[in-house]
Amino acid sequence: MSSASRNSVTVVLDWGTSGFHAFLVDPEGSLVDAKKGAQGIQSVPKGEHGRVLSDALAAWRNEHGPLAIVAAGMIGSRNGWLEMPYVPTPATAADFAAASRTIELPEGDRLMFLPGLTDPSAFPFPDVMRGEETQLVGFGLEQDIVVVLPGTHSKWAEIRHGRIERFRTFVTGEIFNTLANHSFLAKVATAEGDHASAAFAEGVALARDESGRAGGLLTRLFAVRTGWLAGKITPEEMKSRLSGLIVGWEFAEARAGGWFNEGDTIAVVGDDGLVEVYEAVSKAFGVNLAPAPADAAIRGALAISEYDLRSRGREGSGRSYQRA
Amino acid sequence: MSSASRNSVTVVLDWGTSGFHAFLVDPEGSLVDAKKGAQGIQSVPKGEHGRVLSDALAAWRNEHGPLAIVAAGMIGSRNGWLEMPYVPTPATAADFAAASRTIELPEGDRLMFLPGLTDPSAFPFPDVMRGEETQLVGFGLEQDIVVVLPGTHSKWAEIRHGRIERFRTFVTGEIFNTLANHSFLAKVATAEGDHASAAFAEGVALARDESGRAGGLLTRLFAVRTGWLAGKITPEEMKSRLSGLIVGWEFAEARAGGWFNEGDTIAVVGDDGLVEVYEAVSKAFGVNLAPAPADAAIRGALAISEYDLRSRGREGSGRSYQRA
Repeated sequence: MSSASRNSVTVVLDWGTSGFHAFLVDPEGSLVDAKKGAQGIQSVPKGEHGRVLSDALAAWRNEHGPLAIVAAGMIGSRNGWLEMPYVPTPATAADFAAASRTIELPEGDRLMFLPGLTDPSAFPFPDVMRGEETQLVGFGLEQDIVVVLPGTHSKWAEIRHGRIERFRTFVTGEIFNTLANHSFLAKVATAEGDHASAAFAEGVALARDESGRAGGLLTRLFAVRTGWLAGKITPEEMKSRLSGLIVGWEFAEARAGGWFNEGDTIAVVGDDGLVEVYEAVSKAFGVNLAPAPADAAIRGALAISEYDLRSRGREGSGRSYQRA
Repeated sequence: MSSASRNSVTVVLDWGTSGFHAFLVDPEGSLVDAKKGAQGIQSVPKGEHGRVLSDALAAWRNEHGPLAIVAAGMIGSRNGWLEMPYVPTPATAADFAAASRTIELPEGDRLMFLPGLTDPSAFPFPDVMRGEETQLVGFGLEQDIVVVLPGTHSKWAEIRHGRIERFRTFVTGEIFNTLANHSFLAKVATAEGDHASAAFAEGVALARDESGRAGGLLTRLFAVRTGWLAGKITPEEMKSRLSGLIVGWEFAEARAGGWFNEGDTIAVVGDDGLVEVYEAVSKAFGVNLAPAPADAAIRGALAISEYDLRSRGREGSGRSYQRA
């Protein structure tokens, strides 16, 4: 089937809770076109995902014929389209390809679901990621390095000997968002967080220099309020200060957990403004930065789908469309 | 003025954001009656607090004549009735009396506002409390001991040489509430936290035993999700587990901050179900418990008002009613 080979275009699909992004990539790996949709993966009733996706990609199918689609992330979660397994660490790109699953859609498109990644060594329960493993493959598994993937549930991963060796999740974005919108701060703060502000940098410095002193995160967080009461933090600065403190705390915890030492080189991988923020915080912690592509997710999906093609041959897996 | 002396009854008023509690106490310090009101201190327009309070206490005034009222806590905050100063640590009951302020209400009642307490030694900004200092006085400042006051913003205070020596705030309840109601947990969890459950105890044990291992609070919190994904934590158990982890983390931070060592004796002071919870967690951390009265807030308000009477004499301060 030519639709599944790299003689034709490939669609890389990122379908999460807040909508989907689809990227049309030519056989050389260059981005040709992109589409966005507002319908979140969980808002589509079970059994309707195929129709919604087929409709959304109709124009590309009309132009290029049946499409080869590769999808990672939340689409394969328990509340997504169909639940994909987690591959255990240490894992290679070939491991992800082997655990993928391809279905045929009503209009003839073939959709390859990529698995997630689990780290069974995490304490007290195996840690999990969905989507970031594909970004790691897109970043490249050749060099031994620690990679940070910022987000609501930020990930720190170690690449070693061509494999993703281990990783840990930090709920940084989640803590910031819930506190910024629903805590004592919400009524007082008059501006969103500004990562370029002095207040942000001060929060980072506090976490960097003082996380080892008497006092952990639960007590340090109150300083955003006491700083305001003391007239040292303005309502405009509060969320910036909070953001700097929490992102800085992620780095302080990662440092204490052995993920990096001052002077090490790490990489920050992502496709949004958080990359720049995390790079600035990395520098504040005395860490050097390796270059990283902004389209790691697309590169990774393509790379894994090529492994799949090689192992399965150009006839595809022969699996038929299933309503999941 | 007999209304301000302890020959008559005293009203202890706790007027916070979610309503007020008023306690009628006889000259011997025994509780005679109590009233609740649903109107939060911030929902009353400036200038209207006196009328609202006078109306609420009309029946007591009719029976006992003009009332002597003592109020601590949020009523004296920036968003309360009138903003009271913070007395700096180290502080005695007499210091609170000296910094209090008494106004006369339209119906002849006299209302004594108690100040808050600030710890200028806190890093990076002076820490603050409003109301808990009165509970500490009610608990008693005679013995050298560390006292925990559980709450949305939990306080650890050291009593030494008859004074409140220092204290720190932990945003334990705030973090639990925002995460329980607004995070990844909120959609999955099917029950409120149960402090008597095994899941709560497991969360406490994790904080107690593992807070020193690689991994801080930001990464440990994710374990409530991964435990669910791994089938080790049920949706019913999630909030209990979260609660145990966060309260346990407060103790782990307090231990790391030098507030207690295993084998020490501390006291837990409060007037709600959290006291029992914190006492159980104290035991889990190997700490002995000193007895504490459930009515520390009332005892403290009375004790401070007596200092005030002694220093001002039975004629009162002579200050007239002011609309603040």
